[in-house]
Amino acid sequence: MAQIGPPYHIEDWQAAAAAKRSHLFDRIPKTHLLPSELAARAAKHELLPEDPAVLSCGILSSLDQEITCIEDAEVLLRQIQDRKYTKILYDQALERAAELDQHLQDTGETVGLLHGLPVSLKDCYGIKGIPVTAGLVSWIPNVATEDSSITKGLLAAGAVLYIKTNVSQAHLMVESINNVFGTTLNPYNPALSVGGSSGGEAAVVAANAAIIGTGTDGGGSIRFPAMFCGLWGLKCSKGRMPMMGMQSPGDGNESVNAGLGPMAKTVSGLELWLKAQLDCRPWQDDFTCVPMAWQIGEARRARQRLRFGVIWDDGVVRPTPPVTRALRMVVDALRSAGHSVIDLPRERMQVLHRQATSCVMKSNVQSGGYAVMKHIEASGEPVVPRSATGHPGSYLETHEVFANHMLRNRLSSEYNDLWKDFALDAILAPAVAHPAPPHGRYISNAYVAVYNMLDYVTGSIPVTKVDPALDEATQEWYNAEQYPRIEAERFPYDLGDKEMQELYTGPEVFANAPVGIQVVCRKLREEKCISIMKEIESVLAK
Amino acid sequence: MAQIGPPYHIEDWQAAAAAKRSHLFDRIPKTHLLPSELAARAAKHELLPEDPAVLSCGILSSLDQEITCIEDAEVLLRQIQDRKYTKILYDQALERAAELDQHLQDTGETVGLLHGLPVSLKDCYGIKGIPVTAGLVSWIPNVATEDSSITKGLLAAGAVLYIKTNVSQAHLMVESINNVFGTTLNPYNPALSVGGSSGGEAAVVAANAAIIGTGTDGGGSIRFPAMFCGLWGLKCSKGRMPMMGMQSPGDGNESVNAGLGPMAKTVSGLELWLKAQLDCRPWQDDFTCVPMAWQIGEARRARQRLRFGVIWDDGVVRPTPPVTRALRMVVDALRSAGHSVIDLPRERMQVLHRQATSCVMKSNVQSGGYAVMKHIEASGEPVVPRSATGHPGSYLETHEVFANHMLRNRLSSEYNDLWKDFALDAILAPAVAHPAPPHGRYISNAYVAVYNMLDYVTGSIPVTKVDPALDEATQEWYNAEQYPRIEAERFPYDLGDKEMQELYTGPEVFANAPVGIQVVCRKLREEKCISIMKEIESVLAK
Repeated sequence: MAQIGPPYHIEDWQAAAAAKRSHLFDRIPKTHLLPSELAARAAKHELLPEDPAVLSCGILSSLDQEITCIEDAEVLLRQIQDRKYTKILYDQALERAAELDQHLQDTGETVGLLHGLPVSLKDCYGIKGIPVTAGLVSWIPNVATEDSSITKGLLAAGAVLYIKTNVSQAHLMVESINNVFGTTLNPYNPALSVGGSSGGEAAVVAANAAIIGTGTDGGGSIRFPAMFCGLWGLKCSKGRMPMMGMQSPGDGNESVNAGLGPMAKTVSGLELWLKAQLDCRPWQDDFTCVPMAWQIGEARRARQRLRFGVIWDDGVVRPTPPVTRALRMVVDALRSAGHSVIDLPRERMQVLHRQATSCVMKSNVQSGGYAVMKHIEASGEPVVPRSATGHPGSYLETHEVFANHMLRNRLSSEYNDLWKDFALDAILAPAVAHPAPPHGRYISNAYVAVYNMLDYVTGSIPVTKVDPALDEATQEWYNAEQYPRIEAERFPYDLGDKEMQELYTGPEVFANAPVGIQVVCRKLREEKCISIMKEIESVLAK
Repeated sequence: MAQIGPPYHIEDWQAAAAAKRSHLFDRIPKTHLLPSELAARAAKHELLPEDPAVLSCGILSSLDQEITCIEDAEVLLRQIQDRKYTKILYDQALERAAELDQHLQDTGETVGLLHGLPVSLKDCYGIKGIPVTAGLVSWIPNVATEDSSITKGLLAAGAVLYIKTNVSQAHLMVESINNVFGTTLNPYNPALSVGGSSGGEAAVVAANAAIIGTGTDGGGSIRFPAMFCGLWGLKCSKGRMPMMGMQSPGDGNESVNAGLGPMAKTVSGLELWLKAQLDCRPWQDDFTCVPMAWQIGEARRARQRLRFGVIWDDGVVRPTPPVTRALRMVVDALRSAGHSVIDLPRERMQVLHRQATSCVMKSNVQSGGYAVMKHIEASGEPVVPRSATGHPGSYLETHEVFANHMLRNRLSSEYNDLWKDFALDAILAPAVAHPAPPHGRYISNAYVAVYNMLDYVTGSIPVTKVDPALDEATQEWYNAEQYPRIEAERFPYDLGDKEMQELYTGPEVFANAPVGIQVVCRKLREEKCISIMKEIESVLAK
C-alpha cells in the first residue's frame, strides 16, 4: 500500500529542510524583501518591525502603513465595508480579495462577519493544497487534501487567508522552534521567544501582519504566545470549536483537553472570530463539537458588577515581578470600576494547583513518546531541546492512566466548589510566570496546563511591558525559599521556581517584552469570558 | 486510616447478603405482602402484577388501583394539581408527600414540574442516608453521605422518592442479577429477564409501581431494560446530565461514553424528567455537565416532516423475527403519516457496525478487570456469569487504548457523514436483537454499544409484544448463514448470531414479552429525540 500520510521517510533531513525554506523564500515577492543593510541588522536581532527604517524602506506604501497600523478588527471591517480599502495581500489572496470586493460592489452586502479581513492560520489547520508540516521534516511532503472546519468557517465569513505560520516541532514545546523553518523571533525583541506552539500566529498579529490569528492550546499553546507577544487571546473549551481537518502527530491520548481559539490586538477580534465560527453551525460537520450557538444570554449576563477571585501565586512557581505587577494593575483597575475582587485562599489554591499541575503534566506525556518519536525519527532530525515528546520513563501503564483520570476528576470537582463557595464570575491569574524568555528557555507550564486539565475557557489579557524601573528582581524575591519540584525525577521538565530565579535576574534581559495575565471562566462559557474581557479592556483603557 | 468507602472486607458473603435481604424485607409493610397462596404462585413464576387475584387480594384499595393504573405522568400530575389525589406511599415518602400537599394547599402552587409524582431511582444514585450497594456484597455497608445531583433535581421539582431498585453485579451485565438481592423478574413474564443494569427501574415502572424511573447506560443499561419491559426510555449524551453523587465501582476508564436518563410508559414522562433536571441548571454543581438549558428550538424543529434512516440488520447479529416486525411496524406507521424513511446502505452500515462494535467492546473491558475484581473479591462472592468484568486477556496496553481512540474517532467521523449524506433527522434500528430472554441468557450488545461509542442520544420505543402467530423462527431465518464472530478469541462474550439462533427457537419461550426498537439522534440532541419520540408515539397510536 502506498504511503498515504505522514511521517514520510526522509533520507537527508538537512537538505529537505533547506529545500523547504528555499521554496518558501521564493514565494515571498522580491519587492517585500528588506534591503540588505536592514536584513543584516535584522539577522543580528537589532531591528523591530516598527523601526522607522523599515517603514520608510519602500516595502510598504503610505496606504499600506495606514492599513497595517489598524489594530482593531472592527475598525478595519468598517473601512472595508465603506469601500475605503480594497484589495489586500499576496497571490491567491489577491484573487479572493478581488472576488469579495466585487461581491460587495454588486450586492452592497458583505459576505459575512469577517468580510475582507486578512487573517492568518496556524500551520496545523488544513487549507486544501497547502502543506501542513507540524514543524517536522518528515511532514514536509504532507499536503492537505481538504479545508479544516476552522478554515471553512473563516472563508464562509469572508476572511482572506494568505499565510500560515510557524510552530514548535510536533507542537510539543511552548516556544516556536523547529528544524524545518528555524526559530520564530519576537517582534518586540528578536532575542526573545514568541512562545508556542502557536507562536507564528502571535508574531504576525503582534507585527500587524494579520488582524486575527488562530491557534490551538493543549497545554498553553495560545496563552504562552499571547502573553509573550502582548495579545488578547481566547482558548475555548474542548468541543466548542470543530477539530476536523486539523493535523497533528496525534497518538490518541485523550486525557488532556486541547482547545483552540483566536488571538488579536483587541477583544473585538476575538468576538468576531467566535461569532463567525458559530454562524457555520460547526457541530453539523464535526462529531466532536457541542451543538451550542452563540449564547446571547451568557454574553449579556457578564455586563453587571462582576466578582473575581485572584490567584497571586499558585505555589508551583512564584511569578516574576513584572507578572505580579500586571496582575495588580488589573485588580486595581477592576476595583476602581466597582467590581469585586477577592484573594482566593492561598493554602487551598496551592494544594489544588500543585496536585493539578502534577496530574496534567503526567497525562501530557503518558504515551511515553511512543508515537511521536516515529515522526521525528523518520527523517533523522534531532529532537528540539525541551520538547515534551515524553520518553520511556514518562510512560504510564493503563491502570495508571485511569487512576490519573480519577485524580483529575476529584481535583476538578474540588476546583468547581470554588465557584460556588465564592460566587465567582471569573478567576484572575498569571498567564505565565515570566515574560518572553531568551529562545529555548521557557520554564514551566504552571498556571497554564491546570486550565487544560479543567477544560476551562481562558482569556489572555495584555497589560503592560517589562519596565526596567519597576520590575527589579529584588533580593527579597530572589532569595525567597524555593518551592520543591513536583515529581522532579519523573518529570524533569516540570521545573520549579529555582530555575525561575535563575532566569529572571532582572528586567534588562526582557527589554520591551509584553506582560499579561489570564482571566478564567468555567467550561464552555466562551461568551461570558469574552464579555468579561471587554470589561477588562475598558477598565484598563481608563 | 479508617476505611472511608467501598469495597469493605466481608467475612461471610452469604450471611451478609442474607442479612441485607432480611433487613429489606422487614421494611416492607406487612400489609403489602402477598397472601401465602399468591406468594407461592409468584415464586413459581406463575403470577403477573396485573393478575385479578393480585388486584383483589386487599393490598391495593380501589383508589390505589385507580391511581396505579395511570401510566401517563402528565395525567397523574393533573390529578395531583387538582388535588384529586393526595398522599402516596411508604415511610419517609409519606412525610414528603404530606409536605407537598400542604405547600399546594397553602400557596395554590406546585413545587415544580414533578409535584407529587412517585418516582423510583436506580441504586447508584445517592440519597443521603440510604445505602448504595452496586449489587456488590462488599458494598452492603456503604451508605450515601449526600444526595446525587439527579436526586436533587427530582426533589427540587417536587417528586416523591420512596424506592431504589436492583441492578446487576457492579453494573456489569445487561440483566439484573446479583448475589445481594438475587434476580429481578420481568413483570410481563417472571421467567424472563428485565434487562439491566437498570433492570429494577424498568420492572417497577412496567408494573405501575412508579411513574418515572431513572437509569444509567454505559453499554445498553437503559435500552435493554426499556426494551425487555416495554417502556419508553431516553439515554442522554455524556455531559448533558450531572454525574455527581452517582456511585459505581469505577476504575477511571473514560473511553466509553456513559449517559443517563429516564424510563416511563409515555413520552411525556421522559420530557417532564428532562425539563425538571435542566431547570436545576445542573452545570453549576457538576463540572462534567454541559451548560445547555432546554433547547426550545430543537424541540420544535422536529415537528415537521421528518426524514429517517433505518438499519434492518447491522451485520453483527441478525435481529429475531419479532424485532424485525416491530421495526417494520414503526417504519410503516411513519410512512403512512407522511414521513420519509430510507433504508441505510446495507454494506456501509455493516462495515461501520462491525468495526464499531468490536472497538467499543474492547474499550469496555480494557482495564482487564484490574479494579472491579477488588470489589468482588473483598467479600468472596462469586462473579455472576456473563458479567463484563474484563479479565487479564482483555487488558489493553496504554498505546493500544490510544490506538483504539483513534479508530473510534475515525468511525465516529464516518458515521457522522451519514447524517449529511442522507439529510437524516434520526436513525431507526433494533434496540436489542431479541426480546427479554430467560434469565442469564442475553446474547449481544450489537445495535446498542455502538451508540455509546458515538455518544448519540437514543430513544427506546415500545412497539408490540411477541406474537405466537407472527413471530415463528422460520427455517429461512433459522438456517441463514451466520455472521462470523468479531475477534472471538479475544472477546469471548461478544457473541454472534449463532447463539441468537440457539436462543430464539420460536415465540413460545418469550410469551408476553414486550418488543421495541430504538430511535437515534446525534450527540446532545435530547430535545429533538424527545420530540421525534412524541411523533412516533402519536403515529403508533393511530
